[in-house]
Amino acid sequence: MLVGRPFRNDRMSHTLLPKRIALPIFASDALSSVAYAPDEILLTLALAGVGSVALSPWVGIAVMLVLLTVVASYRQNVHAYPSGGGDYEIATTNLGRFAGLTVASALLVDYVLTVAVSISSAANYLTTAVPFFQGQQALIAVVGVLILALVNLRGVKEAGTVFAAPTYIFMLSIIGMTLVGLVQFLTGNLRQSVSAAFEIVPSAEFSQGLVGLAGGFLLLRAFSSGAAALTGVEAISNGVPNFRPPKSANAARTLLLLGIVAASMLAGILFLASATHVHMAQDPSSELTLNGELLSSSYVQSPVISQIADAVFGSGSIAFYIVVAATGVILVFASNTAFNGFPILASILAQDGYLPRQLRTRGDRLAFSNGVILLAAGALVLIVSFNADVTRLIQLYIVGVFVSFTASQFGMIRHWTRELGRVKDRSVRLRMRRSRVVNSIGFGMTATVLVIVLITKFEHGAWIAILAMIVLFLIMWSIRAHYDKVARELAVGDDSSARALPSRVHAVLLVSHVRKPVLRALAYARASRPSRLDAVTVDISPEETAQTVADWEKLDIPVPLTVLASPYRETVTPLLEYIDSMRRESPRDLIVVYIPEYVVGKWWEQLVHNQTALRIKARLHFEPGVMVASVPWQLKSSEAARRLQEL
Amino acid sequence: MLVGRPFRNDRMSHTLLPKRIALPIFASDALSSVAYAPDEILLTLALAGVGSVALSPWVGIAVMLVLLTVVASYRQNVHAYPSGGGDYEIATTNLGRFAGLTVASALLVDYVLTVAVSISSAANYLTTAVPFFQGQQALIAVVGVLILALVNLRGVKEAGTVFAAPTYIFMLSIIGMTLVGLVQFLTGNLRQSVSAAFEIVPSAEFSQGLVGLAGGFLLLRAFSSGAAALTGVEAISNGVPNFRPPKSANAARTLLLLGIVAASMLAGILFLASATHVHMAQDPSSELTLNGELLSSSYVQSPVISQIADAVFGSGSIAFYIVVAATGVILVFASNTAFNGFPILASILAQDGYLPRQLRTRGDRLAFSNGVILLAAGALVLIVSFNADVTRLIQLYIVGVFVSFTASQFGMIRHWTRELGRVKDRSVRLRMRRSRVVNSIGFGMTATVLVIVLITKFEHGAWIAILAMIVLFLIMWSIRAHYDKVARELAVGDDSSARALPSRVHAVLLVSHVRKPVLRALAYARASRPSRLDAVTVDISPEETAQTVADWEKLDIPVPLTVLASPYRETVTPLLEYIDSMRRESPRDLIVVYIPEYVVGKWWEQLVHNQTALRIKARLHFEPGVMVASVPWQLKSSEAARRLQEL
Repeated sequence: MLVGRPFRNDRMSHTLLPKRIALPIFASDALSSVAYAPDEILLTLALAGVGSVALSPWVGIAVMLVLLTVVASYRQNVHAYPSGGGDYEIATTNLGRFAGLTVASALLVDYVLTVAVSISSAANYLTTAVPFFQGQQALIAVVGVLILALVNLRGVKEAGTVFAAPTYIFMLSIIGMTLVGLVQFLTGNLRQSVSAAFEIVPSAEFSQGLVGLAGGFLLLRAFSSGAAALTGVEAISNGVPNFRPPKSANAARTLLLLGIVAASMLAGILFLASATHVHMAQDPSSELTLNGELLSSSYVQSPVISQIADAVFGSGSIAFYIVVAATGVILVFASNTAFNGFPILASILAQDGYLPRQLRTRGDRLAFSNGVILLAAGALVLIVSFNADVTRLIQLYIVGVFVSFTASQFGMIRHWTRELGRVKDRSVRLRMRRSRVVNSIGFGMTATVLVIVLITKFEHGAWIAILAMIVLFLIMWSIRAHYDKVARELAVGDDSSARALPSRVHAVLLVSHVRKPVLRALAYARASRPSRLDAVTVDISPEETAQTVADWEKLDIPVPLTVLASPYRETVTPLLEYIDSMRRESPRDLIVVYIPEYVVGKWWEQLVHNQTALRIKARLHFEPGVMVASVPWQLKSSEAARRLQEL
Repeated sequence: MLVGRPFRNDRMSHTLLPKRIALPIFASDALSSVAYAPDEILLTLALAGVGSVALSPWVGIAVMLVLLTVVASYRQNVHAYPSGGGDYEIATTNLGRFAGLTVASALLVDYVLTVAVSISSAANYLTTAVPFFQGQQALIAVVGVLILALVNLRGVKEAGTVFAAPTYIFMLSIIGMTLVGLVQFLTGNLRQSVSAAFEIVPSAEFSQGLVGLAGGFLLLRAFSSGAAALTGVEAISNGVPNFRPPKSANAARTLLLLGIVAASMLAGILFLASATHVHMAQDPSSELTLNGELLSSSYVQSPVISQIADAVFGSGSIAFYIVVAATGVILVFASNTAFNGFPILASILAQDGYLPRQLRTRGDRLAFSNGVILLAAGALVLIVSFNADVTRLIQLYIVGVFVSFTASQFGMIRHWTRELGRVKDRSVRLRMRRSRVVNSIGFGMTATVLVIVLITKFEHGAWIAILAMIVLFLIMWSIRAHYDKVARELAVGDDSSARALPSRVHAVLLVSHVRKPVLRALAYARASRPSRLDAVTVDISPEETAQTVADWEKLDIPVPLTVLASPYRETVTPLLEYIDSMRRESPRDLIVVYIPEYVVGKWWEQLVHNQTALRIKARLHFEPGVMVASVPWQLKSSEAARRLQEL
């Protein structure tokens, strides 16, 4: 009841999206990163003192450049692969299984990180607006993930309109703030941020400022952190099937729009941060000074957007709260896109045999639920381990996205080269050549960024993400290997042993107490007219066995009851020995073991019933030529459970 | 392999114990309490300053008095109930189910506390001997419980002799130390303990010393803590069947011996503690002073026995290490008696229907294992929650034992009164009257102590133990109520619905892919010659279904394959609807659903196979008139698992 009714297959086609709705649905992840990417650029540069912070707009421009290149590249992907398989499909098709699975592992890990980073950042914004929650970010983030998981287990029906409004409000509020700030700046009315008066104590390493190899390295690290703004760009390429026709063209146009909006917002925030002199540090109480003295440890550092909103609109103004609230909401939506994307990717991987089959059917609630639960669990582990600290989480982030970007761009180059070999039409070839150039530039750019990210972040935490990818890769690879092995073992070949009809059927009825379930099992066993029917009871307690035998004789049924001795006061072994001896006698017979079972309504009732039956069944499964027939007896308490399952 | 082979029923009778072996086996619990009971008496009295500590021998005498009374009472129990059912049997027989179950709950809780207290105390002694472990008591205790649990899961074969030697060494070393100390005292050579020079700062409440109501209350609290020395006395009454004949007489004699030894040891330790001026405090660094200054927080307070051994034999002497080591070992043995007693009591309770049936068969490894695991888990929770602090754990202890003592003594009074109504023989009646007087005194004494323990310890932690008892009681009571309800529901009565033979058998074979397991299931289904046989597949993916249909037709079998539509891309619902429609058509038919299953060897293989089969089976169990036949196919990987299970 909590998770609602499933959707029908045929309802899916009704939900094709116009561009104005598709943009907010697919954009929240990409846009939301301006909520933390500028902060990370400033924090990182601050290590080299206040002079380096002035370089932040240049880092921002580099990030924008990469962003626009990636957008241009993905516009080619959208045209070539409109099926929505995304980077995993492109890598698998063009580069093979190994590359495809690498991309898949990277994407799965990054979905988890998207949730962890976005929700942690949202928790930060909540504490900015409501200081009461200060210091409780980790707890808030945990609660947030749990709520998101519940909502997604329940299922989101009319996602479109719900998503559209807040995303547009966020876009408008950030762009509006930028414009107001720009006018104030040009008219000389722009106030300074609350942190403008702070001085930054550079770390010992950078006492000379941003110079030498270490300086360049720090710049690259700031750029790596800022590149978080690129996550989510690939969302549209996975969503092409949901666009209104012409699907590819509409998706490509939306992608371009997204790129322009995201780049403008990033530029605007970084410009205003620079103009209002926002000064941030990883650990404010040891790196920031006011009038030469270190700040007290009670100083709480607000995110960049909060500080700018404060400077532009004034602290406590309605506009300030709108900006902060819209940012918090968009971050929650960004996590939600991961909750949509993760189970879909898992389902595709399950279809290809890399994940357990039960994750395969996308629409199946249970399969979907497993995906949601796995994602939430992963995010919770990260949030708790890193205490919801965005700066530390961001070190793990983006590696996966850029692995995926790079592999997919390389795959696209291969794709165009192969297509060029087939197509003769001149104008088409020209267009393909152009696309290949775009993808090649995209590949060069993303590969470079990937290397930069790996080098600058590896020791700060990226190794954890890479390790997780490798583990995921190995798990999925071995699941596929296992399925392949089983398929070979089970293929219907020439050998007819599986098809051989058993010569006779020998039925064995398990009796513990003579009660109604046993009588029903007896009736069922007799109805299938076996060649031979034996009732069997194991002698664990002499008194109980005597009672059982007496009760059995009272029934007056022409079925003999065999009592098996149990020197170890245990049920399973004597039974197995009995069945083994029957099999030795007539190996070509089929032995059917009838087990009466209680069907109960509550989980704890299951604990106090059927445990022996379960063990017997588990053990009998290993015996060739033995079939287990469970004869259920529905206790009255099972009625409620049945009705619940039918909902 | 880790837990060894089970023992045979008939081997049990070979292990009847002579008194010299029975004493150490059953005595370790009772004797081991001198390792911590004196400490608790001293610690509690120290709250009222150094003057009160002088009263410790008197508290000791009170404890000894109760101890000897309880021993005298239990000698009557042993004669009247030689079956080994112990207090639970006595309470149930004489006072009814409610009292019996109360005693059982109390004993189960106290078994857990015995393990927690004894192992924590053993960890203390280890750190006395090896200062390297200082501060790690909780960790050591956790490791200790885990090792004990493993050893007990493995099974202890020749328990007797292994237990005898260390227990005798412990008895000899403590009594020897007492005698040596006594001689030194009489000759004026007894040294002072290391803590003799310390002054005790009385807590504010007792700045006037041990006076008034609060003073009396503190004396009673010290007595309550000292009463921990009584735990384990009932062990012999549970063990009567293991004695050599005449069982009761031998058990009674051993009990008397135990009482005398335990009382002497307690008296000896308390006397020497007083003579060597052992000064202890709950928190040494805030309650003990030397030359008017508080002790540094680095002072480590050794247990009483360590301090006495140090004074009598000298620090670092071999005798000192023997005493400390013997004490540590005996504490571990004391925990081990709980590991023996808990599963046996659980098995008796399961036989009476208060615990799940699978705990019933005492000799069954699995049943025994569950008991060991539950006990270890409970003890671990306590140790971790209380950081292995014996002083805090002891506040929870003894409530259970005295509930059990009191109920059993009251039950014995009833027993004798009833017997007196039946027996005519004068001399027998005289003996019975005498026994009744002894048990009445025992009842009065234990009831008084129970009230004292409840009053003085309730707020210090005893409420936790009482709460746990109530919860256990309610769980066991409702399990029994459930079993009774089910038995009534399932009793074979006049209504013959359970015995009615189905008119026809309709077999349904589940097909997903056409592979060997399906062929085997088909062969088995055909072998049982059903009235009608249908093969059914659910259409989740159109391509796969087309493949299945094609493969099926290639097989050329006269069994039709029905394809069920699945609008929600899900397996279970279409199948249930199909079966429901069949049942509506012919309600008196038996429907047998054949499900091919993979039998795998590794747990993770189970995760990637059979999940759908499991869900279908679980759901079909709720359908009346439907039987589920599992047709196992043993994958090659299952061979290893099978061999493992056969060990």
